[in-house]
Amino acid sequence: MREAYHSELGQLADQLAAMCAMVGDAMELATRALLETNLSLAEQVISGDEKIDDARSACEEHAYSLLALQAPVATDLRTVLAAIHAAESLERMGDLALHVAKAARRRHPNPVLPDGVRESFAEMGRIAVSLARGTESVIRSQDVAAARALDDADDEMDDLHRGLFSVIMAKDWPHGVAAAVDVTLLGRFYERYADHAVSVAKRVVFVVTGRMPGASDDLEP
Amino acid sequence: MREAYHSELGQLADQLAAMCAMVGDAMELATRALLETNLSLAEQVISGDEKIDDARSACEEHAYSLLALQAPVATDLRTVLAAIHAAESLERMGDLALHVAKAARRRHPNPVLPDGVRESFAEMGRIAVSLARGTESVIRSQDVAAARALDDADDEMDDLHRGLFSVIMAKDWPHGVAAAVDVTLLGRFYERYADHAVSVAKRVVFVVTGRMPGASDDLEP
Repeated sequence: MREAYHSELGQLADQLAAMCAMVGDAMELATRALLETNLSLAEQVISGDEKIDDARSACEEHAYSLLALQAPVATDLRTVLAAIHAAESLERMGDLALHVAKAARRRHPNPVLPDGVRESFAEMGRIAVSLARGTESVIRSQDVAAARALDDADDEMDDLHRGLFSVIMAKDWPHGVAAAVDVTLLGRFYERYADHAVSVAKRVVFVVTGRMPGASDDLEP
Repeated sequence: MREAYHSELGQLADQLAAMCAMVGDAMELATRALLETNLSLAEQVISGDEKIDDARSACEEHAYSLLALQAPVATDLRTVLAAIHAAESLERMGDLALHVAKAARRRHPNPVLPDGVRESFAEMGRIAVSLARGTESVIRSQDVAAARALDDADDEMDDLHRGLFSVIMAKDWPHGVAAAVDVTLLGRFYERYADHAVSVAKRVVFVVTGRMPGASDDLEP
């Protein structure tokens, strides 16, 4: 029973790691679509989102069957529920990458981003993808210290996000209201993606160690 | 065993109904804080958010103990998991009301909303609160038809949200970039709140009937 449970749990962790890879790829392509005004990359992310949704359903089904067949209690039970929550957050990360891609498609052949904020988005994209990759490697390596390092990347993201607002709100923003609205929403997508990534990392640390790192995994909306 | 399970599940549904009432109140007050530039109402929502977070934790703990003690399978298991997901969405609705309240506080004593969009936000607030109240009454009455009616309110919200963008993006928007950014984010908070409310309603229909209404409960981010 315990052995079966641990083998099932290992497979569930593998499924979560695969989802991390998928949402990391999606955000990498979506950011390139945005920066390079590349319609076919945007389309690739948009049509790929269904696979991420399917992977989440598969994770949930696996977790449900684990609960039904093994009826785990105490920490084991919380571990499976953490995996279900992590899969939900990963699907949301996929949705956020999808929204970046849709913004790129909506304005095509015009670029969404004015020149003054391109660098910030390149950096936010880099951090977002590294958070997804880092979370994947936390699952595969079970390295809890690596999970904590992800918090620093999230702080960087928050700084970039705040910096973006200063740029948009500055009196001399020359790009008009429509560009400001696009940049506001896009900035929010990246910031939310990073928050979800950190929440997933904390939950998978729980899944692989049975302990939740830090007191709080509250998310800003 | 079955009787104990159903009594526990009934209590869990009551907890969800109470959370609906809390997040409905929070959004009602936050909207008034926004429209009336009322700092003390904003503070009330901000300090009240902790109670909503606690209510979510209590729901989760109750659900966990139900899983651990009763080890439900099949539909019973999915029902408890739907309740856990619903509690999570309700906490997010509380967070979104909190963000509206924080926006009102940030700009105080200045109003956040320019005159041209006040009517829209009054209406979005009305719909958001009615969605929370409607969800509460679906839980209490177990009236599945009432849950379906919530979809119409959500469509209204989406229309208002789209209308808001047309207003902001219009060439003659006279209120500048900062106001446009505030209105963009606030509009998103209301629209997300409504999406979550509909998702909660669908899940509680599942909790009270064992059947999920509609094929999809996908959420926009």
